[in-house]
Amino acid sequence: MSRLRWGLVGGGGGAKVGPVHLQAARQTGAFELVAAAPSSRPEVAAATDWGCPTTANWRDLLTAGLDAVSIATPNHLHMEMARAFDAAGVAVICDKPLARTLAEIEGWTPANPFVVTYNYSAYPAVRRARDLLAVGALGDLQLVRIGWAQDGRLKPGAAEGWRADPARSGPGGTLGDLGTHCIHLAEFVTGDRVRELNAEVSGFHLPLPTDATLLWRFAGGARGSLWVSQVVPGGGKGLELLIAGTKATLRWRLAAPDDLQLLSVGESADPLPALPPEAWQAGFTDAFAALYTDAARTIRGEPSLAPTYADGVRGMHFIEAAIRSNGAWVGL
Amino acid sequence: MSRLRWGLVGGGGGAKVGPVHLQAARQTGAFELVAAAPSSRPEVAAATDWGCPTTANWRDLLTAGLDAVSIATPNHLHMEMARAFDAAGVAVICDKPLARTLAEIEGWTPANPFVVTYNYSAYPAVRRARDLLAVGALGDLQLVRIGWAQDGRLKPGAAEGWRADPARSGPGGTLGDLGTHCIHLAEFVTGDRVRELNAEVSGFHLPLPTDATLLWRFAGGARGSLWVSQVVPGGGKGLELLIAGTKATLRWRLAAPDDLQLLSVGESADPLPALPPEAWQAGFTDAFAALYTDAARTIRGEPSLAPTYADGVRGMHFIEAAIRSNGAWVGL
Amino acid sequence: MSRLRWGLVGGGGGAKVGPVHLQAARQTGAFELVAAAPSSRPEVAAATDWGCPTTANWRDLLTAGLDAVSIATPNHLHMEMARAFDAAGVAVICDKPLARTLAEIEGWTPANPFVVTYNYSAYPAVRRARDLLAVGALGDLQLVRIGWAQDGRLKPGAAEGWRADPARSGPGGTLGDLGTHCIHLAEFVTGDRVRELNAEVSGFHLPLPTDATLLWRFAGGARGSLWVSQVVPGGGKGLELLIAGTKATLRWRLAAPDDLQLLSVGESADPLPALPPEAWQAGFTDAFAALYTDAARTIRGEPSLAPTYADGVRGMHFIEAAIRSNGAWVGL
Amino acid sequence: MSRLRWGLVGGGGGAKVGPVHLQAARQTGAFELVAAAPSSRPEVAAATDWGCPTTANWRDLLTAGLDAVSIATPNHLHMEMARAFDAAGVAVICDKPLARTLAEIEGWTPANPFVVTYNYSAYPAVRRARDLLAVGALGDLQLVRIGWAQDGRLKPGAAEGWRADPARSGPGGTLGDLGTHCIHLAEFVTGDRVRELNAEVSGFHLPLPTDATLLWRFAGGARGSLWVSQVVPGGGKGLELLIAGTKATLRWRLAAPDDLQLLSVGESADPLPALPPEAWQAGFTDAFAALYTDAARTIRGEPSLAPTYADGVRGMHFIEAAIRSNGAWVGL
Repeated sequence: MSRLRWGLVGGGGGAKVGPVHLQAARQTGAFELVAAAPSSRPEVAAATDWGCPTTANWRDLLTAGLDAVSIATPNHLHMEMARAFDAAGVAVICDKPLARTLAEIEGWTPANPFVVTYNYSAYPAVRRARDLLAVGALGDLQLVRIGWAQDGRLKPGAAEGWRADPARSGPGGTLGDLGTHCIHLAEFVTGDRVRELNAEVSGFHLPLPTDATLLWRFAGGARGSLWVSQVVPGGGKGLELLIAGTKATLRWRLAAPDDLQLLSVGESADPLPALPPEAWQAGFTDAFAALYTDAARTIRGEPSLAPTYADGVRGMHFIEAAIRSNGAWVGL
Repeated sequence: MSRLRWGLVGGGGGAKVGPVHLQAARQTGAFELVAAAPSSRPEVAAATDWGCPTTANWRDLLTAGLDAVSIATPNHLHMEMARAFDAAGVAVICDKPLARTLAEIEGWTPANPFVVTYNYSAYPAVRRARDLLAVGALGDLQLVRIGWAQDGRLKPGAAEGWRADPARSGPGGTLGDLGTHCIHLAEFVTGDRVRELNAEVSGFHLPLPTDATLLWRFAGGARGSLWVSQVVPGGGKGLELLIAGTKATLRWRLAAPDDLQLLSVGESADPLPALPPEAWQAGFTDAFAALYTDAARTIRGEPSLAPTYADGVRGMHFIEAAIRSNGAWVGL
Repeated sequence: MSRLRWGLVGGGGGAKVGPVHLQAARQTGAFELVAAAPSSRPEVAAATDWGCPTTANWRDLLTAGLDAVSIATPNHLHMEMARAFDAAGVAVICDKPLARTLAEIEGWTPANPFVVTYNYSAYPAVRRARDLLAVGALGDLQLVRIGWAQDGRLKPGAAEGWRADPARSGPGGTLGDLGTHCIHLAEFVTGDRVRELNAEVSGFHLPLPTDATLLWRFAGGARGSLWVSQVVPGGGKGLELLIAGTKATLRWRLAAPDDLQLLSVGESADPLPALPPEAWQAGFTDAFAALYTDAARTIRGEPSLAPTYADGVRGMHFIEAAIRSNGAWVGL
Repeated sequence: MSRLRWGLVGGGGGAKVGPVHLQAARQTGAFELVAAAPSSRPEVAAATDWGCPTTANWRDLLTAGLDAVSIATPNHLHMEMARAFDAAGVAVICDKPLARTLAEIEGWTPANPFVVTYNYSAYPAVRRARDLLAVGALGDLQLVRIGWAQDGRLKPGAAEGWRADPARSGPGGTLGDLGTHCIHLAEFVTGDRVRELNAEVSGFHLPLPTDATLLWRFAGGARGSLWVSQVVPGGGKGLELLIAGTKATLRWRLAAPDDLQLLSVGESADPLPALPPEAWQAGFTDAFAALYTDAARTIRGEPSLAPTYADGVRGMHFIEAAIRSNGAWVGL
């Protein structure tokens, strides 16, 4: 199968996630990088050796004959770029959150394939979890709990950069950085929808949300909570997922991402489905590559588990509902 | 030092916690069991061999010349017995929750020493955690999170017995069973007070709270959440405590109760206090025995870390606030 | 049932294991401490408040009308005391290793009940492991591996005291301190016997074995290894047991002593026995108390799982075989 | 920098490790796959879509103008292919073990760059461990222990295929499959050399080594052991490394490969080096890609940590020494 002609915007000059886009896309063998705009700083763009021509002007890529482009930039650039590439007939793979605010995206939908990089949903064990829930392995769903502790906002320099600047990152703070991953993960794995939430959003250390806990209720009756924080010393890969049904509980932790635990009631003899181990020890790049493999399917019009534009919009609704809640139950 | 003359009410006929009272008190060497009312069923009382005279009528113990009595009965009997023993000049060691409702205890305070068995606060590592916080090892307190998953309400027979009967256990359900331990633990370790909370209380499987998540705010500015549940398949010893300050995070888990983890910010070079390991692997009975050792100190008028009557009342306020909250912030 | 009249030798003046004997025996309710020789130093003996008369001369206990005595002293005193108490018709509960050398015990067997405190075999999960193996839950036994890392010999003062003095502790070092527990654990859980071993015994830091690894072969065909060490920084409660059969693997760790893991072949659908959780979180003292409960049964002539005099002798054979091996296979 | 013209032999038709070579090489961006011999079966070779011409005859790649070739075939083909490609002036990246026997490689050394895929040494945390040891963070080295439990030889079909056929895999069995990784890991991380070993090699289930435990002694005085097994139900990613010095212990586990634990003596106040967390959660493919990045450096004559031909030969010496030992100490 011929490779997709692919471009990458952002990711140069020491960016953190950008190089993972590149490595992941390469790993799949489905994308060929034909043009890149690694940075708007000409000296950075010129110095980036990704094996393709580079430019400091992302608009140059609009006419590069691309099949697809990945947008790995600060949040405030996502929608401007996405609209331009979509208008140029290019499929878009966009980092999350989709935008700074819902207002930014209001009234727009893409005409071409569009994927949002909720990459945690692409871990093999997470997909297996989804399959287990789909066949009812947990019984009736009761509880969905996600927690994620990081310490990025406590590190030196955390008050600088675009993430700490609401004008560029939007008002969501950790709700955008971590929370949008989590709402997608919760709904992806359960196949259910959060119907309402009640949030406590805190801005420790910065004039932006850096910690948030919220109660949530799902359409199907399950309850639970979500906690995201970037002010927990020693946090890091602390993403944890617990889903409990009437028959079994499922646990997954990013720190040991191949282990999917399925637990039954203490004294129960109910047999649980066998959990054959993952073939390989999966890493962050692998999950990103799985997402890119699915993105290629989406772009080719094939069945795919890649997160969609609607999933991206969902994340924006989540951010705004959590901020609006302010200690009361609000719809989502 | 001479032993305290001690009596035990409840704990016979297959009760679960009662025998732990006995083993723990014995282990300390500070108590001598001189009379017991193991059960109100005469045949059970008569068949109980605890090395002392037994009776089916707990009032017989009022005149047994006791220094102290432990009340290990269903909740609805706590206050009736406590008032009677206190009136008889006997120190009381009472199981938690203190009562079914605040109304039951209104206007009463004991005249004699009184201890409530919040036994988890007596684990060596928990006490060390308290000491670390007292000296500011975590920096400014930001987050206090406790979670505790059990599956008792999913087991066969869970709908029977006094715990499933609000008339005997009170309206608190898991808020009384687990939640009162947690509010005490949170305030004991931090030395701070929960000022308000916002709770989601759920009655999966039973017409009683079996799962509750609540957001809480401390007087000193910390925030966080508490989750207690008795409907999580595979839950059991899943009590977990996470306290994060500006400098460090402290974690403790009941499943490995000697391990106290102290984590610093990822790239920080701040030295953390050394954590010499506990001498012995501590068990549930050991923690209970440590509580009994402190109870003996309380009874003798010596300094003690044993939970007080006020701590018991605090737990009742907690239960009622959580139920009253119903998705809004309420004071505690 | 009336309590056994019990004496305790050793354990005073800051000894570590001695007080656990006392707490454990008290916890059972089966023993009444009627006389004690906590220390040969008169001022220590006099200052020890264990609720019974104390003496600095252990021989005073020979005529105290005891049913049983516990010997919690340095190794070189075990056999002298054991022989004297046995001659006086007193049942003996003796710390391990039984003696310094096999020569010390040669030709002697006790006339009265005799128990050796291999306390790790009394953890509830360890006993459950034994039961699982007894019913063939693992299939044919293939591998038995035990590891135990401590760091006691690296701590300040480790070169002082009786444990560092071969004249008092014997030539076994860590083989006696940790190894004898392990050989008993291996044979207790499997119901099989080590037939030969091949050992590497090392004396890091001290002129005594402080680290030993040995290959072993069981009579039934299983193989594996044992590692004990007291020179591993950060070691502590690191006792770990892995037993693999053709159908399943069983794992147990002292650091989380209630968790017994049973693992099947990755892609197998073979059902494994359910593992109902332990009722309480078991501690070191609890296991010791379980051993004392069994000791009381042994003393009363009832069925018991308490380790016997023969088990103690077995440990001495183990020490000497390991030292003798010196890199070659030797019988045990 | 221009990409290396690269070929791949093996890896087609459902092979397990082959596709990882491809993904890893792609991920680096340093290799361009220009020709492949995925299988000697023409229909498999023809059906493999790797984005380059394929052939069933690996010799076709000798004249494909390659800079480098990877050999991901059964062991018996390694040396024949390696010699041919080296003679054709092509750099070789060869799977381990290097050959079936030492006799196969005797007298030969490659004229061109040569890399052996000991991929576990390329995990970021493993390389950090090496750096820590190099600066003396552990003090004097005392103990080196590696364990690795898998259950592949217990799975259905394990008696079939080339791994179970000594004619194709060589006599090493698990010594070649797992053991060669381990000897490299031990020597790579410590910078020391195993000087002698004493092994127990067992052939449970197959007429090949499926389990081996060996005692080893390092030139610098450290001791310890290695255990590799493919007959442990539930084993899988169970590679574990423990290295203890006089000051600190270092632990690493494949199941949570970003966590490097550094433990000090319990009561020590010695500060340990800070361990900043790994940036991303590393996976098997990432480690393989890191190895390929180093392989590209080796091929270009730059400094590299990639395992060398000599490291491959070392693994063969290890296999033969372990088999020869038969319960006695032998040199390595």
